[in-house]
Amino acid sequence: MNNKILDGKTLGMKIRESLKERVEQLKSKGVTPGLGVILVGENPASVIYVNSKEKACQKAGIFTITRRFPAEIDEKTIFQKIDEFNNDDRIHGILVQLPLPPHINEAKTLRKILPEKDVDGFHPMNLGKLMLGEETFVPCTPLGIVELMKYYGINPEGKNTVILGRSNIVGKPLANLLIQKREWSNATVTVCHTKTENITKHTKKADILIAAMGRAEIIKGDMVKRGVVVIDVGQNKVIDPEAKKGYRLVGDVEFSSVFPKAKAITPVPGGVGPMTIAMLLSNTVKSAESKIEKGG
Amino acid sequence: MNNKILDGKTLGMKIRESLKERVEQLKSKGVTPGLGVILVGENPASVIYVNSKEKACQKAGIFTITRRFPAEIDEKTIFQKIDEFNNDDRIHGILVQLPLPPHINEAKTLRKILPEKDVDGFHPMNLGKLMLGEETFVPCTPLGIVELMKYYGINPEGKNTVILGRSNIVGKPLANLLIQKREWSNATVTVCHTKTENITKHTKKADILIAAMGRAEIIKGDMVKRGVVVIDVGQNKVIDPEAKKGYRLVGDVEFSSVFPKAKAITPVPGGVGPMTIAMLLSNTVKSAESKIEKGG
Repeated sequence: MNNKILDGKTLGMKIRESLKERVEQLKSKGVTPGLGVILVGENPASVIYVNSKEKACQKAGIFTITRRFPAEIDEKTIFQKIDEFNNDDRIHGILVQLPLPPHINEAKTLRKILPEKDVDGFHPMNLGKLMLGEETFVPCTPLGIVELMKYYGINPEGKNTVILGRSNIVGKPLANLLIQKREWSNATVTVCHTKTENITKHTKKADILIAAMGRAEIIKGDMVKRGVVVIDVGQNKVIDPEAKKGYRLVGDVEFSSVFPKAKAITPVPGGVGPMTIAMLLSNTVKSAESKIEKGG
Repeated sequence: MNNKILDGKTLGMKIRESLKERVEQLKSKGVTPGLGVILVGENPASVIYVNSKEKACQKAGIFTITRRFPAEIDEKTIFQKIDEFNNDDRIHGILVQLPLPPHINEAKTLRKILPEKDVDGFHPMNLGKLMLGEETFVPCTPLGIVELMKYYGINPEGKNTVILGRSNIVGKPLANLLIQKREWSNATVTVCHTKTENITKHTKKADILIAAMGRAEIIKGDMVKRGVVVIDVGQNKVIDPEAKKGYRLVGDVEFSSVFPKAKAITPVPGGVGPMTIAMLLSNTVKSAESKIEKGG
């Protein structure tokens, strides 16, 4: 593969391989890491995500329990199920697949998960610790991005790092991660969003550009400088009659025009996506390990 | 006063006046807002801060209890005292004056405070909610800065807002506050710090420049563009034999050279400092009000 490509698929597989060994270690101590998953409704994308997370867990030796509920379920029942997982010693990580139906309060639901089982890193307690620079569960996509940069020797220290998008699961936690005073962080971070005036002014100055807006191919070659490192978090479906499924996945970055100018770039698919899932497994294994360390 | 000056002293007093009315309202419902303060050791600056906070509370009609401990006190005793305040219905806000002596773990101490009494906004739970854009106690200095900008009609929406410094009490929470998708936020925020390469490149592009590094007069006139709004969080002592106390307070900004280029600027003293203390009182009153709303 071209050496400019930040190959998250291959690195993701490598990490998942290395997790197998850590799982074996845990098993030899009598602990099998376990992930509890809650899926509400039948959103096709959510069903696919949950299936692939389950499969990935099984391959790594992580035990999973998935509870599926109809979309009409009430909050109380979901909270009860989360509580069962909270109290279940076999479960080290809990994942509530988003989005939830509109009548379920997402924020309220996510904070029912015990912070020490919050392997998605969405609990305010864990996000607060992330802001403070403390050890915690970091949300999987930001964590995967940092691991990918580390692997390829891309150190954000001192670099103009421009994050496009301020979502609670990518932009905000990633910004908080990258400004920390520590190795593989220490970046000068700018967060841009829909209200930013003249976004090109910012993208053109980026040494590292992280696109997480969820808008198909909006970043073009003439918006970046030569030598930029591009991390494309977008996973947008665009209709393509020639594709097998009738659509294809594209990023927030127009690959064809940005690639020639970039020093390094993540492809879509095969860039950030596979890293996210690897980090979910990694957080689950870490949770089981830390429980053993604490003698639990 | 010059209309370029963002006069935090006068606004702080105004806010404190308006709090009096809210306190009277609360008292008419049988509730006197109460602040519990913990002061460890005899750090002269801390003693002065605690005294002035107590006085400001009393003037606003807020009841205070201050527990003073010698520097040699153990963590356990402090935790017990925090717990007493947590369980004391008369206390709506708890403040642990920082810094604590080195043998006391600050992070661990601060998270003993119940999040709903954490009027300093330093608990990870409250910082996480801040990151998520939820209603919470916002740390007093960032909150005071936003209130000051609001009062003077300086809307950061879409503006290049450069924050110098990434402390847990100013830089990080302020960045998280200003990037939120809501009125009087929506800023394009860049966080610079000691590892930033070529800091002048960033300061020169700032529409709004917030200096919170704690380094005396480091930002000079030739580092900013004409028309910049400058918020100076620095409170640095410099030796001055002509001053009554033998020193004077200066900001992180060299006022004499920046003032002529600025559209608006906070003085030091009399800018951000008085806003911080007003916000502490405001958060305490808010805590008492929200307790009544919850019927507690």
